Amino acid sequence: MDRSRLEAFSDGVFAVAITLLALNLAVTGPGHGSLLDKLGRQWPAFVAYGISFFTIGIIWVNHHALVRNIAVVDRTLLFVNLLLLLFVVAIPFGTATMADYLTAGGQDARVATALYAAILEGMSLGFLAIFEWTLRDGRTFQPVPRAARWAMRGRFYVGQVPYLIAFVVAFISPPVSVAIIGLVAVYYVFERTPSTPGSRPGTAPGPAPGGAADTGSYGSDGGPDQPRA
Amino acid sequence: MDRSRLEAFSDGVFAVAITLLALNLAVTGPGHGSLLDKLGRQWPAFVAYGISFFTIGIIWVNHHALVRNIAVVDRTLLFVNLLLLLFVVAIPFGTATMADYLTAGGQDARVATALYAAILEGMSLGFLAIFEWTLRDGRTFQPVPRAARWAMRGRFYVGQVPYLIAFVVAFISPPVSVAIIGLVAVYYVFERTPSTPGSRPGTAPGPAPGGAADTGSYGSDGGPDQPRA
Amino acid sequence: MDRSRLEAFSDGVFAVAITLLALNLAVTGPGHGSLLDKLGRQWPAFVAYGISFFTIGIIWVNHHALVRNIAVVDRTLLFVNLLLLLFVVAIPFGTATMADYLTAGGQDARVATALYAAILEGMSLGFLAIFEWTLRDGRTFQPVPRAARWAMRGRFYVGQVPYLIAFVVAFISPPVSVAIIGLVAVYYVFERTPSTPGSRPGTAPGPAPGGAADTGSYGSDGGPDQPRA
Amino acid sequence: MDRSRLEAFSDGVFAVAITLLALNLAVTGPGHGSLLDKLGRQWPAFVAYGISFFTIGIIWVNHHALVRNIAVVDRTLLFVNLLLLLFVVAIPFGTATMADYLTAGGQDARVATALYAAILEGMSLGFLAIFEWTLRDGRTFQPVPRAARWAMRGRFYVGQVPYLIAFVVAFISPPVSVAIIGLVAVYYVFERTPSTPGSRPGTAPGPAPGGAADTGSYGSDGGPDQPRA
Repeated sequence: MDRSRLEAFSDGVFAVAITLLALNLAVTGPGHGSLLDKLGRQWPAFVAYGISFFTIGIIWVNHHALVRNIAVVDRTLLFVNLLLLLFVVAIPFGTATMADYLTAGGQDARVATALYAAILEGMSLGFLAIFEWTLRDGRTFQPVPRAARWAMRGRFYVGQVPYLIAFVVAFISPPVSVAIIGLVAVYYVFERTPSTPGSRPGTAPGPAPGGAADTGSYGSDGGPDQPRA
Repeated sequence: MDRSRLEAFSDGVFAVAITLLALNLAVTGPGHGSLLDKLGRQWPAFVAYGISFFTIGIIWVNHHALVRNIAVVDRTLLFVNLLLLLFVVAIPFGTATMADYLTAGGQDARVATALYAAILEGMSLGFLAIFEWTLRDGRTFQPVPRAARWAMRGRFYVGQVPYLIAFVVAFISPPVSVAIIGLVAVYYVFERTPSTPGSRPGTAPGPAPGGAADTGSYGSDGGPDQPRA
Repeated sequence: MDRSRLEAFSDGVFAVAITLLALNLAVTGPGHGSLLDKLGRQWPAFVAYGISFFTIGIIWVNHHALVRNIAVVDRTLLFVNLLLLLFVVAIPFGTATMADYLTAGGQDARVATALYAAILEGMSLGFLAIFEWTLRDGRTFQPVPRAARWAMRGRFYVGQVPYLIAFVVAFISPPVSVAIIGLVAVYYVFERTPSTPGSRPGTAPGPAPGGAADTGSYGSDGGPDQPRA
Repeated sequence: MDRSRLEAFSDGVFAVAITLLALNLAVTGPGHGSLLDKLGRQWPAFVAYGISFFTIGIIWVNHHALVRNIAVVDRTLLFVNLLLLLFVVAIPFGTATMADYLTAGGQDARVATALYAAILEGMSLGFLAIFEWTLRDGRTFQPVPRAARWAMRGRFYVGQVPYLIAFVVAFISPPVSVAIIGLVAVYYVFERTPSTPGSRPGTAPGPAPGGAADTGSYGSDGGPDQPRA
C-alpha cells in the first residue's frame, strides 16, 4: 500500500460524501403549496449544506497536508484513516437529520443538532488520531521537532474544543450550536497558520476541524515528493 | 497540497455530480398510466439532463485547461475551487427542480428556472474567481501577458452575461430561459477559441460557462508538466 | 487536457454509474408480504443488475484499451467522450425501468425494454465515434494500418448490430430482447480478439458493445506510456 | 490496460460503495414519534453500517496489497476483478436489507441475514479468484514460492469458512450470524499476518475476508513500483 493509494481512495470518499450533501436539498414535486414557500421553509437545508460542504472541504485540505508528509504507510494508519472516513461518510446523514429537525423545536431539534456535532467531533478525533500516528520517529519526511511536539499537540487538542462546546450547547439552543459549527468552518477557511519553526512552509499541519494546515504556497510539479534530508 | 490532488478531488466531484443527474430520470413503477405517457410527460427531465450534463462537461474541460497551467497551489485557491464545486454539486438539485416545475407554469415555473440559472451563474462566478486568482504574477507556468489580460478578462466577464440574461428571462418565460441555457452549452461545445497571442496552443483558457478554454491539440504523455521558461 | 485527466474523469463516471446500478435492488421494509416473496418477485432487478454491471464493465475495459493508444487529446475527443458518458450515465435509469416493467407485460414491457436497448445502442455509437476519431493520422501512438482500417471498421460496425436487433425484438418479445443483451455481455467477457496484424498485442482495440478490445498481457509499470516510433 | 487503471477504477467503486452505506442511516422527517425513538429503533442500521464499512475497508486494503504485486494485467484478471466488484457494489443493498429485517424476526430476519452473508461470501470468493489468478508463474513481481503456495492457499480457503458459517447460522439465529460477521471484521482490523518466508515484508498477501494482507511498513514515494528480480 503506497501513500498515493491512500490518498486516491480518501479523495474518492471525500468527493462522494461532499456531493451527496446536495441530495438533501431536493424539494417535493408540484402540488403541495408554492415552490417559493417550500424553498423558504427548508432554509435550514441550505444553511446546513453550506456548513457541511466547507467542513468536509477543510478536512480534505488538511488531510492531504498531513498525509503528504507521511513517509511510511502501515496497517495501523490505514485503519485509523478508515475511522476518520467512517465519520466523514456519516456527515450527509447528520447534516440531513439536523436540517430536517432544526426548526421542529423541542427535544427533537436538540437531539438532531447534538447528533450532528457528535459526528463532526468523531471526524475531528479521527483526524487527531492520524496526527498522533505521524508523531512517532521515522514516519514522516519532515518530522515535527521534539521541542515543538507538545505545542503542536496542544493546538490539535484545543481544536477539539469547539465541536465539544457545540455538542453541549445543542442541548440548550440548537441554533446557537449550529452557528458555532458554522463559525468553525469560517475560521478555518480564513485561518493562516504560521509555519512551525524549522519546517518548510506548506508541509507543517496545524490544528483544524481536526487540525487546520498551512499548505503555504509552493510549486506543484505533479510528480512524487522526494524524501528530504 | 500539490496540483494533482486538487485535480483528482475536483474530478471526483464532477464525476459524481454528472452521474447523479440521471437519478432524476427515474419513472415510477407500473400502475399509474402507461409508461409511454409517463416518459412523455417528463420530457423536461430529459432536456434538463442533456443541458446540465454538457454544462458540467464543459466546466470540467475548462477547469482542467485552467488548472493545468497553475504552478503554485495555495489555500486561497483551494477555497476558491471549493466555492466553484459548491455550485457544481448543487446542479443536480437545480436541474431536478427546474425539470419538475417547468411545465407546472405560473410562479413556480419561474422560481424553479430562476433557481437553475442562479446556480449556473454561481458556478460561472466561481470559475471566474479561479481565473482572477491565476492572473497574479508567478502563479502560472505560462502567464497571460499583461497586455492581453484585460482582453481576456473581458471575455470572461462577457461570459457571465448569458446566465444573467437567463436568470432575468426566467421571470418572463421559463422555457425561453432554459433555451438560452441550452444554447450556451451548444455554443461552448462547438466553440473554437483562438489561442491568446504568445501562448502555447492548448494552455490559454478563454471564457466559458465560466470561461471556455482552447485545449488545442498536443501530445499527452501522462507525465508531469514541466514549468516552461 | 492530457490523456490521464480524460481517463480519471471517465473512470470516475464509470465507477459511480456501475455502483448506482445496485440502488435498484432495494426492497421495501417489513410489512407487505414475506421478504422471500419480495426478493423473488424482483428477479428481473437481479438479472438486469448482472447484465448492466458487466456491460458497463466491458465498456470500461474497452474504453481504456482504446484511450491508452491516443497520443493527442483535442476538444473534439473530449466532447465525443462526453457523448459516450451521457449514455453510460443513463444506463442505471434504463436498467431500473426495464427491470420494473419487464414482468408488467403489454406495451409497457415493450417500451421499457426498447428504451434499455436504445440507451445501450447510444453508448455503443458513442464508443464507435471515439474509434472513428482515432483513425485520423497522428492521433494514436500506434495507428491502425491503412490496409486494416476497413476490416477493423467493419468489426466495429458489425458490433452495433446486436443492440439494434435487441431494440427491434423488444417490440415483439421483451424477454428475448433482454436475453440478447445478456448474451452480448457474455460474448464480450469471453471473447479473445486476435490482434490486428502489425500491432503490439494489447493495444489494438476490436469491436465490442462498442468494440471489444484485446488488452493482451504485458507489463504494467504504472508509469506513463512512451510514444512508440 | 495497465495496473494503475485497474486500481483507479476499483478504488472508485470501493469509495462509492462505502459512501452509499450511509444512505441507509436516514431517518424520516418530523412527525411520527420522537427522533430519539426513531434513532433508537434503527440501531441495527448503525451496527450494520459499522460492520459493512470496515468489511469494505478491509477488502480495499487487501485488494491493493494483492494487486500491487501484479506484473501483468490480462482480460481474465479484469473480469475476475469485475466479479469481485459485482459483490462489493451489492453490499450496501445487503446491508440495508439485513438492517431493515433483523428485528422483524421470523423467516424474514433469517432470509435477510443469509442474503447479507451470501453477498459477503461472494465477495470473498471473488477475492480468492484474484488470488488464484496471481499464482501462475510470471504474473507477479514477487511470486509466492512453490513450497509456500499450498500453505498460503490453505489460509485463503480457511478464510472462506467464517462467512459460510455465518450463512448457515443465519437460518438458526440471525443476531449470532451478524455477530460472527462483525467479529470477522474486528479480527482482520487487528490481525498482524507474519510475512511469507522469502518475501519482502508488505507485499505478501494473506487470507482475509477474502485474504488479509500484511502491508508491513515501507517507504511510499508515490512513484511506480519497479519489478524486482
